[in-house]
Amino acid sequence: MNEITSTVALSGLADPQTLSALRDAIGIIAACLTTLSFVPQAWHTLRTRDVSGISLTMYSVFTLGVALWLVYGVILGAWPVIIANLVTLALAATILTMKLRFGQAPVAIRG
Amino acid sequence: MNEITSTVALSGLADPQTLSALRDAIGIIAACLTTLSFVPQAWHTLRTRDVSGISLTMYSVFTLGVALWLVYGVILGAWPVIIANLVTLALAATILTMKLRFGQAPVAIRG
Repeated sequence: MNEITSTVALSGLADPQTLSALRDAIGIIAACLTTLSFVPQAWHTLRTRDVSGISLTMYSVFTLGVALWLVYGVILGAWPVIIANLVTLALAATILTMKLRFGQAPVAIRG
Repeated sequence: MNEITSTVALSGLADPQTLSALRDAIGIIAACLTTLSFVPQAWHTLRTRDVSGISLTMYSVFTLGVALWLVYGVILGAWPVIIANLVTLALAATILTMKLRFGQAPVAIRG
């Protein structure tokens, strides 16, 4: 990259519109990752029924917190906040329910 | 509550300033709950070393997502986003590290 090209690239990054688009893209990717990360946990728990290592306190507090994020999104009228937290709430509530249900029975013997 | 009092209370709630304060309070409580919920999980994992029920994929994707939320907060210059995600990142990375470390050794026999 010569001096002129790199100056153009840098001024492009410093441009408020480019920075704002980059910021929004990072926010959208971040929201997708933290929301969808609960899919493999829900699947793992459903498949193994192994809930002894999962904290009941964590999922109780987390589910309540996500429900409040949802209320916050509704008051704000911000649909990305509403959608992300609706999905996370469904997944967290599913894991919490499995923890409560599978936690009652003795854990299956693992090889 | 008589009719006059309830009318005052309702008009108070409809007042944009009151609604904005209520919204912010809900947002702050939601952020504290979802952030601090990882403390009991980290403590549970540290104490029991029982990581078989914890999804490696979940904590890998979640940690990456929280790191991107932190970058988003820095670009935005929004300190509540920065603080909440710094704390969550530290807790999620700790749980991920324990999953990787304790996951290698056979799980201790539980009574």
